[in-house]
Amino acid sequence: MRRVAVLGTGHSNYMFRSEKPSTELMSETAMEAIIDSGLMPGDIQAFLMGNAWGAFEEGQSTLQSYVANEIGCYNIPATRLEGACSSGTMAVREGFIWVASGFYDIVLVGGVERATALPTPLATRVFVTCADSLYEWPTGFVYPASFGMLAHLYCRTYNIPLSKLEGIMACVSVQSHEYALLNPKAQIHKKLTKEDVLNSPMVATPLRLHNCCPFTDGSAAIVLASEEFAKKLDKRPVYIAGVGQASSGRISSQSAYYPRIRSREVSSRQAYRMAGITPEDIDLCELHDCFSIASLIAAEGLGFFEYGTAGDAWEKGNTRIGGKIPINISGGLKAKGHPVGATGVGQVVEVTQQLRGELMEQGRQVEGARYGMTDTMGADGVVTNIILTTEK
Amino acid sequence: MRRVAVLGTGHSNYMFRSEKPSTELMSETAMEAIIDSGLMPGDIQAFLMGNAWGAFEEGQSTLQSYVANEIGCYNIPATRLEGACSSGTMAVREGFIWVASGFYDIVLVGGVERATALPTPLATRVFVTCADSLYEWPTGFVYPASFGMLAHLYCRTYNIPLSKLEGIMACVSVQSHEYALLNPKAQIHKKLTKEDVLNSPMVATPLRLHNCCPFTDGSAAIVLASEEFAKKLDKRPVYIAGVGQASSGRISSQSAYYPRIRSREVSSRQAYRMAGITPEDIDLCELHDCFSIASLIAAEGLGFFEYGTAGDAWEKGNTRIGGKIPINISGGLKAKGHPVGATGVGQVVEVTQQLRGELMEQGRQVEGARYGMTDTMGADGVVTNIILTTEK
Repeated sequence: MRRVAVLGTGHSNYMFRSEKPSTELMSETAMEAIIDSGLMPGDIQAFLMGNAWGAFEEGQSTLQSYVANEIGCYNIPATRLEGACSSGTMAVREGFIWVASGFYDIVLVGGVERATALPTPLATRVFVTCADSLYEWPTGFVYPASFGMLAHLYCRTYNIPLSKLEGIMACVSVQSHEYALLNPKAQIHKKLTKEDVLNSPMVATPLRLHNCCPFTDGSAAIVLASEEFAKKLDKRPVYIAGVGQASSGRISSQSAYYPRIRSREVSSRQAYRMAGITPEDIDLCELHDCFSIASLIAAEGLGFFEYGTAGDAWEKGNTRIGGKIPINISGGLKAKGHPVGATGVGQVVEVTQQLRGELMEQGRQVEGARYGMTDTMGADGVVTNIILTTEK
Repeated sequence: MRRVAVLGTGHSNYMFRSEKPSTELMSETAMEAIIDSGLMPGDIQAFLMGNAWGAFEEGQSTLQSYVANEIGCYNIPATRLEGACSSGTMAVREGFIWVASGFYDIVLVGGVERATALPTPLATRVFVTCADSLYEWPTGFVYPASFGMLAHLYCRTYNIPLSKLEGIMACVSVQSHEYALLNPKAQIHKKLTKEDVLNSPMVATPLRLHNCCPFTDGSAAIVLASEEFAKKLDKRPVYIAGVGQASSGRISSQSAYYPRIRSREVSSRQAYRMAGITPEDIDLCELHDCFSIASLIAAEGLGFFEYGTAGDAWEKGNTRIGGKIPINISGGLKAKGHPVGATGVGQVVEVTQQLRGELMEQGRQVEGARYGMTDTMGADGVVTNIILTTEK
């Protein structure tokens, strides 16, 4: 296995109602990543793309072929991967395998979604196609319902009063919105107070509007290359240190493990093992905060905190820059946004820029970071992908 | 790169209106392939699955995770690939990379589609999401229209009278239906005469009903393993000798090349180069005959015949068992059926069984075959995947 470097990055503004179709959204950030790498489209040997519901959003499947052609990467292999909200990170992991194996030297990885091309109620229906359609969706398990259930289960399992959890979850949202204010690409630029969160409309008890991430349009891209190639080209190589992917079945098959997410715990251990590190080595993490409760569950499942204690970290500022483990300094899914197929690629872009020290001007640089982690979960935990990145 | 073997295979009946949901359809053939390999579900390290439109057909995306759990392959990486009609073969190629690279030793690859869960007019609309949605679909380019256009272009390019081409295309359909009669898994068991084809209803000039493949439900699966592992287990190893994948853009970007399909010609040359062989070495081929004209274009693009001459081969029986190059001895997409996400995996199953000499009883064994080829094209040529298999 060869070492794999992340070269250039591309990242669109995350937004509500993009005026551009996904082909253009994806092509623009793909070109941004290629140019940022100091390459030309003809240098790209293959393209991997995460996209969940292009067929619903725009009547467009197989988008990857059209994008490859659009950006002048003629006739290269172009593959679309779908793993619900984890689709983008799934594509990054695949790109890692393609390059690490020596199958290709230079691979473009992208992700795109235009979720707000759908009217919001329809988007809710389309999103939940990733949950079990036979037994669970018909009973009303859209995601706010599932994660609301996880929040109640979290309280019960760790003996935390619901009112306390509501306060903690408000802190999670407040922090994400605060950092998103410093991220020019974020979808939501709006300072929140704890009271704003606690007074926002109830969506699915105990989750309120400001405990839920928005629907988002956007795209992101990275170029992956072999270490040998990267060293010729780039003065600030960032490497993939480990990857992990795992699946789970429908909610009913996970019930004995909930509120912990088994696919996350399996995949993150794979990634730590591959990198030869432990959670203590991680200097910043972008994790899957589709709902505020998901942040707590993720931070514990990744090994940063004891189970049932992540709330303290948010309340005490230990998840901020300068804290024990800076989490979602991009604004996270909650405030940066969640353009499903793009989300994981955008997380890797964020971590790469952090490891390169490129975010000083934005006022949200995690200084001296050596290891970054991304965690992207699909549906009710049916898939999780983990990418560990290092500047070493 | 390690050599990769195809171990066991699984193949459902191809059918109209499956009573089973895709999860079950896929799980059954996945288990069939695992058992045929002499393995247990716990031996499977990863799962790749081709599926194009589960979200439309059953409101189910991310099917791969549910299938993995269903068959007892708990928490393994499970990845869905979408490349239109080529999705299944795309998954096979990916499985090849995963095993050849040493990333995994034993990978399950499957494909499933339940296209006839949709009413036929809606299926036509859903299928064409893989064609360009911005400029071409709105002008009426559903697939019968595109391939009708290719037929006219074929006549013009190679100076063949349309009436002659209609006769040739009828021969193509007649042969496929004849062999499908010998294939118990085929969707259509109905002998056709040339007259039946020529008198069937016109769909899109010059393509008549019996020049078009049906909508199909079905699934197929194979287990891939490293050579080292395969040798311990299997007395009849069949190996993947080469793979290829290429993309193209929308029809308008391919017009200077049509009726030839550039993605096919690029991907098949990759596969031949990897295997170190030429078209003359191929002993049988399963190719993408979504419409009869597509058979001719494919057989020429793969290098079996000079451009504009493939029709002679079908008319003279050179594409039959005992002929120069036996083609679609399964019945092909036309009569065996075309369950999109499963199609390419089903082709590999067919070729594997041929190379193992397992089809003698069915009366359609290509004796002494050493190299088999599968060709699976997506949409209007926007993607093609090629798998070369050998018993050597």
